[in-house]
Amino acid sequence: MENIDTLIKARWIIPVADGPHHINHQAVAVHNGRILEILPVDAATTHYQAKAVIELPNHALIPGLINAHTHAAMSLFRGMADDMPLNDWLQNKVWPAEARWVNEQFVHDGTALAAAEMIRSGTTCFADMYYYPDIAAKAAKQAGIRACVGLIVLDFPTIWAADANEYLSKGLSLRDELANDALISTIFAPHAPYTVSDEPLKKIRMYADELDLQIMCHVHETADEVAQAVNNHGKRPLQRLNELGLVSPALNAVHMTQLSDEEIQLVADSGAHVIHCPESNLKLASGYCPVHALLQAGANVALGTDGAASNNDLNMIGEMRSAALLAKSVANNAGAVPAYEVLKMATINAAKALGLADNLGSLQAGKAADIVAIDLNALKTQPVYDPVSQIVYSADSTQVSDVWIAGKRVLHNGVLTTLNTDDLIQRAQQWRDKIIQPE
Amino acid sequence: MENIDTLIKARWIIPVADGPHHINHQAVAVHNGRILEILPVDAATTHYQAKAVIELPNHALIPGLINAHTHAAMSLFRGMADDMPLNDWLQNKVWPAEARWVNEQFVHDGTALAAAEMIRSGTTCFADMYYYPDIAAKAAKQAGIRACVGLIVLDFPTIWAADANEYLSKGLSLRDELANDALISTIFAPHAPYTVSDEPLKKIRMYADELDLQIMCHVHETADEVAQAVNNHGKRPLQRLNELGLVSPALNAVHMTQLSDEEIQLVADSGAHVIHCPESNLKLASGYCPVHALLQAGANVALGTDGAASNNDLNMIGEMRSAALLAKSVANNAGAVPAYEVLKMATINAAKALGLADNLGSLQAGKAADIVAIDLNALKTQPVYDPVSQIVYSADSTQVSDVWIAGKRVLHNGVLTTLNTDDLIQRAQQWRDKIIQPE
Repeated sequence: MENIDTLIKARWIIPVADGPHHINHQAVAVHNGRILEILPVDAATTHYQAKAVIELPNHALIPGLINAHTHAAMSLFRGMADDMPLNDWLQNKVWPAEARWVNEQFVHDGTALAAAEMIRSGTTCFADMYYYPDIAAKAAKQAGIRACVGLIVLDFPTIWAADANEYLSKGLSLRDELANDALISTIFAPHAPYTVSDEPLKKIRMYADELDLQIMCHVHETADEVAQAVNNHGKRPLQRLNELGLVSPALNAVHMTQLSDEEIQLVADSGAHVIHCPESNLKLASGYCPVHALLQAGANVALGTDGAASNNDLNMIGEMRSAALLAKSVANNAGAVPAYEVLKMATINAAKALGLADNLGSLQAGKAADIVAIDLNALKTQPVYDPVSQIVYSADSTQVSDVWIAGKRVLHNGVLTTLNTDDLIQRAQQWRDKIIQPE
Repeated sequence: MENIDTLIKARWIIPVADGPHHINHQAVAVHNGRILEILPVDAATTHYQAKAVIELPNHALIPGLINAHTHAAMSLFRGMADDMPLNDWLQNKVWPAEARWVNEQFVHDGTALAAAEMIRSGTTCFADMYYYPDIAAKAAKQAGIRACVGLIVLDFPTIWAADANEYLSKGLSLRDELANDALISTIFAPHAPYTVSDEPLKKIRMYADELDLQIMCHVHETADEVAQAVNNHGKRPLQRLNELGLVSPALNAVHMTQLSDEEIQLVADSGAHVIHCPESNLKLASGYCPVHALLQAGANVALGTDGAASNNDLNMIGEMRSAALLAKSVANNAGAVPAYEVLKMATINAAKALGLADNLGSLQAGKAADIVAIDLNALKTQPVYDPVSQIVYSADSTQVSDVWIAGKRVLHNGVLTTLNTDDLIQRAQQWRDKIIQPE
């Protein structure tokens, strides 16, 4: 008998690796934060002596979901301003509220609330783009959730930095600070082609090559953005990024709702990654990302929720569903982007986009023990013909019962073990009270 | 002090009537299955002596949600066949499975499972179209949920009837049986223009006028349907229905994804109702219903889930969200179809479409006490700036804590009081085992 930390026995395991989509009555052996082995329950019981043995007779295990694009702290603005045209929403609601309220405490409280919501709904890693990435990293570590924090860069001054050089230097020192962190990684985050000029973009490309970091950027979010770029630069943003050398396997191009066939081919050939945020794109009427066409061309597409101010949740279970439903309509093909493809977009594809696929994105021996258990024994997911279909098309995020990150059980039968839900809600309400009735 | 059955005190009440979208710290007084009054908590406490006093300090009360189109018993086929082109799905999966398995027991068990899922997610009334409407009515009554059962009509023989005349006569006798039922009403349900010929449609129109019944029909679900009708009849289905006199305030036209501007105006001018099923339309790549344009033209639009085989749930909370998000993209206007409009589509608009608005669809004195409580004190719905926004854009269906139908508490702190969840799930699993491994 081999002594290990944890043995998780489940009705179904969905490894999201080569081989069958799901396997029945198997167990995951976990030790020192890693997956040792996936094997039949009987063999596991005879071979392993575990400190913790978890029996999940009605559950499916999936790899931890990876939210490949969000603005976590904006959870405090959830529902503050809805049903408005994009520019009106940004210029008259979001940006003034950010200028008035965003500070270190706001980012800490907002990121903690977001981390709690994400863990509760099966997300074990998120890629973030916001001010005070150092504080977001702290809040994520306290929550025990993985984060890939964006080193945000803009041309203009904000509360975080005065100019592109200061954004870059603050980002680089944060990257050094976090270089060996077990849970937190970093990613360059130039906000968008229309807010970052050529010089800082060239520097980011150079640093990204030297430091082997990925680059996250909002690209082709709306038709307006593309039209204005053509007016200002005489070229579409993706073309400009390509001429600057940024369209490469390092690029995480977020949104991408406006793509010609040539641009789809360019993305696929370049090895750049597309981060699809279907619910935000729908809510802001930004346009449709051609997910099926991108996948057919061979591009890697991952999934993100965007911020809670434009979604209005951080629930990757629901985001998978929206992605699977919308992709069929956009492709005019009910066979497009099946449930299993969407699960890949939310796990292994996202791990590839963030440069973390050696460690994350699938349930395989040697990878981190980031594991999510979903209880399918609920009215809305019965009967079960195919567990992947029930998870993507029918499950509620509250059916996530347990979550392990690096082998640590951060959700235990639906209860957070690293965060206090009542305290988080109370702080969120205090922020709301201040925001709606400023002194 | 006036003695009454129930007094429900809530943080927010969303009446979906004239006046403010929500009111704070009010109570609903319920007696003999009806709403007596909505008044401030203090006044209620001094004026009413209730057998049951319910305190809901973190909850919003909304009118019971009305699922304006489903095929309830198909819940037993949930996830049996996904990600397939529509015709392949129907001809090679759904229709053969129905021919092999649908009988009285199937419809009873499937409708009971569906009723449980619907009550659990805040639905208090559903409009159904399937075989054995008599059995569906029985199952709904046992569950204590309202149903408007479709008197299905087809040209061709099925297990329910041999020809259009038999469908009609069986439907009419069921209508007579249920004429005075407290929970169950009936609606003519000619399946679609391509499956019902002119003669039965004319008879349905005549009977509907005489009996003051509404008519539910799949109309313009896909572009193929419209193109084939133009080939076969030389006219679009809506035009044919109009020439037969069916485009009237009695018509519930389901799906309507293919509409010209003239057809949108025709629907609005005629007083016909559109039943929008966004998730089914997306999943089957059927096309987009122009909800914003229909509402702008003055048409009444209600919301339905369609069957669980093409959705894959019967969750109206999620359906409201999908409708609100999709309508903005389809209208290319982030301000289109705000959250409150979608809540109307799922309540009062649906009551109007089904001819039940005198009794259902809003929280008002004199109407039936069909009331749903939603607990907003959850991570994913905090903070609350606007309870309507949180319900439509952020809430999980599991945040529905309590449901009253005709004053009876059919969901009590998340637990069904009229149905046994374990038993329903066990029966669903027995059906699945038979269906995947027929003897």
